[in-house]
Amino acid sequence: MSTHRLVMVRHGESTWNQENRFCGWFDAELSEKGAEEARRGAQAIRDAKVEFDICYTSVLKRAIRTLWAILDGTDQMWLPVVRTWRLNERHYGGLTGLNKAETAAKHGEEQVKIWRRSFDIPPPPMDEKHPYHSSISKCGRPQERRYAGLRPGELPTCESLKDTIARALPFWNEEIVPQIKAGKTVLIAAHGNSLRGIVKHLEGMSDQAIMELNLPTGIPIVYELNEALKPTRPMQFLGDEETVRKAMEAVAAQGKAK
Amino acid sequence: MSTHRLVMVRHGESTWNQENRFCGWFDAELSEKGAEEARRGAQAIRDAKVEFDICYTSVLKRAIRTLWAILDGTDQMWLPVVRTWRLNERHYGGLTGLNKAETAAKHGEEQVKIWRRSFDIPPPPMDEKHPYHSSISKCGRPQERRYAGLRPGELPTCESLKDTIARALPFWNEEIVPQIKAGKTVLIAAHGNSLRGIVKHLEGMSDQAIMELNLPTGIPIVYELNEALKPTRPMQFLGDEETVRKAMEAVAAQGKAK
Repeated sequence: MSTHRLVMVRHGESTWNQENRFCGWFDAELSEKGAEEARRGAQAIRDAKVEFDICYTSVLKRAIRTLWAILDGTDQMWLPVVRTWRLNERHYGGLTGLNKAETAAKHGEEQVKIWRRSFDIPPPPMDEKHPYHSSISKCGRPQERRYAGLRPGELPTCESLKDTIARALPFWNEEIVPQIKAGKTVLIAAHGNSLRGIVKHLEGMSDQAIMELNLPTGIPIVYELNEALKPTRPMQFLGDEETVRKAMEAVAAQGKAK
Repeated sequence: MSTHRLVMVRHGESTWNQENRFCGWFDAELSEKGAEEARRGAQAIRDAKVEFDICYTSVLKRAIRTLWAILDGTDQMWLPVVRTWRLNERHYGGLTGLNKAETAAKHGEEQVKIWRRSFDIPPPPMDEKHPYHSSISKCGRPQERRYAGLRPGELPTCESLKDTIARALPFWNEEIVPQIKAGKTVLIAAHGNSLRGIVKHLEGMSDQAIMELNLPTGIPIVYELNEALKPTRPMQFLGDEETVRKAMEAVAAQGKAK
């Protein structure tokens, strides 16, 4: 029997997605298309009449703006919202800002394939000469106050998918799980890789399987969970018939490709 | 010597301000003019390069949207935000929704004058037949989940200015003051009467003086506070020269009228 409902939304297209650049912790804005995806996600939640008790998001504006669109579009702007770096996108280290061609030119096609196929091999770290180093990888004033509260060693300079999941799950376990167990309906607006961490954990997926799963963007993902917080059925999607069918087919096809 | 800086913003025009109706806890939207006021307030904070550590607002969207405009316009969307009913506007009880003419017709000019001039006489309570009763004055599902966390007796059915201040100040003292004392720069986006409570407390103003003080809307109000959290000079305003001059003159004139 399902006793809890959890909704997750992966933010839509950002201006850097458009340019096919590794974004990670760079604070890119949603593109107009991404903003429209968020509004459609809000509409789907409104149509499904889902009411939340508490919301979680990252400290990156493409996720926060997606959440704002949902709170606004469902008339729930008054809900408590918790922002955390632990739900940030994967930190792409030295690759941040590079597009695919630049990455291949700089590191070689073979190396790019290794990074793409590995669960636990991180990209090169972001060093001090990196153009985004001061806005991402330094703590405290005047560089980046956003990460000033992190403890020594917590701020990454690059992350594998494994690393991303490893820093996202403590927040899931320590902050979100108690709320769900207390009967709260939780909404999480975050990023492809931080949400992968939660999905992998909920479904008990292998490292390989989670790498092959690409969550749809802007489409609310619904889990029904039992008392042990295990899913009682596969993830569902909210939206019009066509949107939901396409998302289901895409996710199912990824499972088969494995 | 000033050691702390506090910024407060009163939300701008709502759709109900336009119609001159008692709004209070009704969740009216900002008008287009109100949204523009918020954007100008954001610009003023950006120009002054004020950086915040934590933000507080009410659970009413006209204040939340004002805060969002400031967070967006100053590139601080990642900041923690705390929403609380204790910073809500004064609850106008049975007057909620009435315009001035309707109020006078229903209760008489004399009574309206008494309410307008008194610090501690509340309007009539909002009873169960009031058209907005179910959306404002009932706790819990399905009526109004927003106030479901309040303890018995906390949800008002009407408030005098004194009542409003009495429920706003515990939040100031217990939640905001510790943050300021810990060195945080605080932003509060709220309402005319909840902000009056804070101003009255900070400046040690009389009941009569605070009734006569109308804070400007959409213009960031800055206090410099000493270690005892006492203002070291009068409130300042952020904005272009003309905006600041007008706000100062308006506030000064109110003081003299007394």
